[in-house]
Amino acid sequence: MDLRIREHAEVLVDWSARVEPGDDVVVSVAEGAHELAVAVAEKLGERGANVVTTYASDEVSRAYLRAHDGDFETSDHELALYENADSVLFLGGGRNTFATADVPGETRQAASRANQAVREARMDTDWVSTVHPTRSLAQQAGMSVEQYREFVYDAVLRDWEALAEEMAKMKEVLDEGSEVRLVKGDGTDLSMSIEGRTAVNSAASVAYDSHNLPSGEVFTAPYDPEGEVFFDVPMTLSGTRVRNVHLTFEGGEVVEYAAETGEDALGDILDTDEGARRLGELGIGMNRGIDRFTDNILFDEKMGDTVHLAVGRAYDSCLPEGEAGNDSAVHTDMITDVSDESRLEVDGDVVQRNGRFRWEDGFEE
Amino acid sequence: MDLRIREHAEVLVDWSARVEPGDDVVVSVAEGAHELAVAVAEKLGERGANVVTTYASDEVSRAYLRAHDGDFETSDHELALYENADSVLFLGGGRNTFATADVPGETRQAASRANQAVREARMDTDWVSTVHPTRSLAQQAGMSVEQYREFVYDAVLRDWEALAEEMAKMKEVLDEGSEVRLVKGDGTDLSMSIEGRTAVNSAASVAYDSHNLPSGEVFTAPYDPEGEVFFDVPMTLSGTRVRNVHLTFEGGEVVEYAAETGEDALGDILDTDEGARRLGELGIGMNRGIDRFTDNILFDEKMGDTVHLAVGRAYDSCLPEGEAGNDSAVHTDMITDVSDESRLEVDGDVVQRNGRFRWEDGFEE
Repeated sequence: MDLRIREHAEVLVDWSARVEPGDDVVVSVAEGAHELAVAVAEKLGERGANVVTTYASDEVSRAYLRAHDGDFETSDHELALYENADSVLFLGGGRNTFATADVPGETRQAASRANQAVREARMDTDWVSTVHPTRSLAQQAGMSVEQYREFVYDAVLRDWEALAEEMAKMKEVLDEGSEVRLVKGDGTDLSMSIEGRTAVNSAASVAYDSHNLPSGEVFTAPYDPEGEVFFDVPMTLSGTRVRNVHLTFEGGEVVEYAAETGEDALGDILDTDEGARRLGELGIGMNRGIDRFTDNILFDEKMGDTVHLAVGRAYDSCLPEGEAGNDSAVHTDMITDVSDESRLEVDGDVVQRNGRFRWEDGFEE
Repeated sequence: MDLRIREHAEVLVDWSARVEPGDDVVVSVAEGAHELAVAVAEKLGERGANVVTTYASDEVSRAYLRAHDGDFETSDHELALYENADSVLFLGGGRNTFATADVPGETRQAASRANQAVREARMDTDWVSTVHPTRSLAQQAGMSVEQYREFVYDAVLRDWEALAEEMAKMKEVLDEGSEVRLVKGDGTDLSMSIEGRTAVNSAASVAYDSHNLPSGEVFTAPYDPEGEVFFDVPMTLSGTRVRNVHLTFEGGEVVEYAAETGEDALGDILDTDEGARRLGELGIGMNRGIDRFTDNILFDEKMGDTVHLAVGRAYDSCLPEGEAGNDSAVHTDMITDVSDESRLEVDGDVVQRNGRFRWEDGFEE
């Protein structure tokens, strides 16, 4: 076994999920994630956890969903499993990213509604999502599988403790700030309020309220955006490649939108509901192990030298206790490269210029 | 997809497990059983069942068990899953029948003890075991994979209703009988009592209290055996091939044993506990779709023209309500070919001679 698979498992179990002896752990194994599952099982055995492995096969789901009449109900046995679990480790990595492409949208939505209680029980655990580098994901990223393995392990096998410390500086700036302004040479000039909101130091560990491995971003829930923003990192929305999005915000809402390709898919997202035209997230990508776009949001939004904004739902962890943030059925991230001709200001002070943070060597005042 | 995989799934879901709309079903998927899992999911979708798929990987189990310190506890989340399940479908078919060969016996036993409550909850459901024809099982059977697929589907895709009717005749004979005698040209002459015991018509359906697909045997719980018996069908006991076993029973117990190969493995089984030297089962193989030995007890013991006996634990379903049968930690089946120079008598009447039953054409009185 590639030694890095064992290291990946160790980071996942110890740093990310903080598994303790006697914990009841569910390991969800995608079709191509067998090897990682073996390494994770070994680590969980060492830790003395109790393990159930589930098979998260897209082809199995597709067959089930397409055959069903659409009148779904909550699975009591599945609910009982997650209500009694301490942690859930999602080992992604399928064999075809389009394996469920021919499941009708309404079937998908009906299943998702019936599944809500199960999903909530799962999110109530110390859950963590990661991926094993499969050929299918390499293909999506436009890489050979060897190249993709390098990419994934560069992103995952980091000094998380050191990165968490650095990200704490960014969190402090955002927590103390009131207004954020992003300016770029491409015409981007967007201001938004973050007053009263709490940033999450997403350091790939449940101890930081962070549930992705890799992670490496600091995010908060902004509101009242005004201005224009260009997103130059491509993305895939509902199976459609979307490039070079331009949004104009007035009165806190998207009032104009355009995209070089995939404008209709973008429009569908923005028309979902009222909240879909307001902001749900501002994220600062700080994982420099991720140095390129791979068409996978788990990686893309954490890329070093990028900033992302999401339209739609805001995360509760950024809001004051009891306060509701922006609500929507969608949460769609869009990414912009800030490595060049760019600055991020908080209350008028430049925090990041051309990708360098103000606490770093090479930062130009 | 091979159409026979879909037919297999249909027999499993409809004939064997009798799944109804709204049932909470667990599908346990072995490493090589993906395709069958897809077909079963489709069928369960059609039936409107709620499904959880678990990943029953020998390699994952091995890694977990070898890493664990051996101080296992009951998995509460796993217990909750099965306590809330109506059916469990075990789709066997691994990629290496020796995948757990280097897990120490004591670790295995400790895990098994801690797992007892889960096992009991599982056995309380409408569970069914079947296998998908993998290369590994083909290898164990000494066949090409194409040849093995033919073999498996011949055994599984039968007219189960017709076979159940024929087996009902055998069950009636055993239920009404008091003494069974098996005589063969090789020196076998064994008598045993079945007075008061109830035979199971194992017709591969939970409706018949039968939990294997394929099945096709009628079995009961005999006692007080006297005489000698030769088992000429090979078997594998604890990983050791055992051939040509000879047992001598006196006073209801094995008093002498021998085997051409693997005698030590046989001795270990017989020395497990007191019950291991007494009989737990007499079974009449009646599935003529199974026409050869494949070193897999799921198939071997149902082979047409064979009779098998097990030393060790008796099944409760054969015993009068509240009565305890033979108890033991083991239940080891041994098979003898009855196609030639053989007769099976119940209370002095010949029921089967040279493989033919008395209700069949070609039976010689």
